[in-house]
Amino acid sequence: MRIKLTVSYDGTNYSGWQVQPNGVTIQEKLEEAVKAVTGETVRVTGSGRTDAGVHAVGQIAHFDTKSSVPPEKFYKALNVYLPEDIKVVKSECVNDDFNACISAKKKTYAYSFYFSDVDLPLKERFAVRIDREPNVELMKSAAKMLVGKHDFKAFCSSGSGAKTTVRTIYSIKIKPSIDGIGIFVCGNGFLYNMVRIIVGTLLKVGYGEMNIDGVKEMLLTGNRAIGGKTLPAKGLRLEKVEY
Amino acid sequence: MRIKLTVSYDGTNYSGWQVQPNGVTIQEKLEEAVKAVTGETVRVTGSGRTDAGVHAVGQIAHFDTKSSVPPEKFYKALNVYLPEDIKVVKSECVNDDFNACISAKKKTYAYSFYFSDVDLPLKERFAVRIDREPNVELMKSAAKMLVGKHDFKAFCSSGSGAKTTVRTIYSIKIKPSIDGIGIFVCGNGFLYNMVRIIVGTLLKVGYGEMNIDGVKEMLLTGNRAIGGKTLPAKGLRLEKVEY
Repeated sequence: MRIKLTVSYDGTNYSGWQVQPNGVTIQEKLEEAVKAVTGETVRVTGSGRTDAGVHAVGQIAHFDTKSSVPPEKFYKALNVYLPEDIKVVKSECVNDDFNACISAKKKTYAYSFYFSDVDLPLKERFAVRIDREPNVELMKSAAKMLVGKHDFKAFCSSGSGAKTTVRTIYSIKIKPSIDGIGIFVCGNGFLYNMVRIIVGTLLKVGYGEMNIDGVKEMLLTGNRAIGGKTLPAKGLRLEKVEY
Repeated sequence: MRIKLTVSYDGTNYSGWQVQPNGVTIQEKLEEAVKAVTGETVRVTGSGRTDAGVHAVGQIAHFDTKSSVPPEKFYKALNVYLPEDIKVVKSECVNDDFNACISAKKKTYAYSFYFSDVDLPLKERFAVRIDREPNVELMKSAAKMLVGKHDFKAFCSSGSGAKTTVRTIYSIKIKPSIDGIGIFVCGNGFLYNMVRIIVGTLLKVGYGEMNIDGVKEMLLTGNRAIGGKTLPAKGLRLEKVEY
């Protein structure tokens, strides 16, 4: 029986999703929880890796089990063994051809900024501080240029090992509030650090340190160097994965 | 020279505001930071204690110093020595008759609930989970009864040592959102656990487990037993102190 999980985590204290020799990971904690519940050693496959320090509201994963625990109650059993900063919010039985990674059609990531000239302890965990307000209209114009099917070579860090750097972005929503900005990026898949570089580049445009033609140039030339910084992991969360 | 500080903290890892023999406290960390900046051993007086695990957006404190650091830049110097979960957001010079505790006229506390049947790692740090929505209109009716000058004996835990249990509540605002409820209580001062008991009692009313006459009875008889639970510290934060 194949079980699909919806997983939420505070990534602060983890070395990302994927099991690795050094550092504790989300995947490892989930596999330990499945083992504690079922006695089985399984691979829990995620929709994709999230990097060290990145959070998730609705990461999706799957695993196979012979356990007799009812699928829709599996999340409760797993949560008994999971730490406070990782919880399964839903579990369900799916067909054997469902694959959390391969079947994923759309992913939405969110990035959060807050305005302050001092680090705020009640904000710092899940958002990144900026000390002046960027021009949101400029950011929206730059974001428009990124929507669509493009070669995002200029928007990834080296070491991703992806076969192609072509991806499709369906939408980028920029939502300002009184005390910050939320940026929501929806696409068919993302390269290594892609969202953090996109948001860093939008911020650079919003600060008037780069014009919109620079974004076009990045798409055409693949030149990472002219883009914005790769922003910190803590401001990023995987909102949802659609199938 | 007397310096007034506005302090924000994530109370999760602290034994509350006040210095004590066992456990690390906010006051202690601030006094250590002042010592690191000025070399002086001072008492940093807060507007009042916050309990273990309670957070603050705008706690107010004062201390005296002979330092030549400009008052309005003191916060930056202190922040160098403060941990990530305690930051001073403002510092200013005040008259010697200003006392963060005695001069305080109004305090506003906020309490946050979120709706879920599972603990959510991105919410749990600063809010308390409830698995069903209470009746907000009933809660508002109960809250109205508490506004004004009353004997709040039924709304405090034993061990407060307060001379009188009479306090004035200026307002209680109940703000529902899509995924939770925020409750803002403003008063001239609060007894030990008073906000957490008020909110616990409002929730009990909102769940239909107590009627509004019960709230009246608590005010008249001082009977703590019929009220709601003392809710967890992590949902509570000191929003602001007015002088």
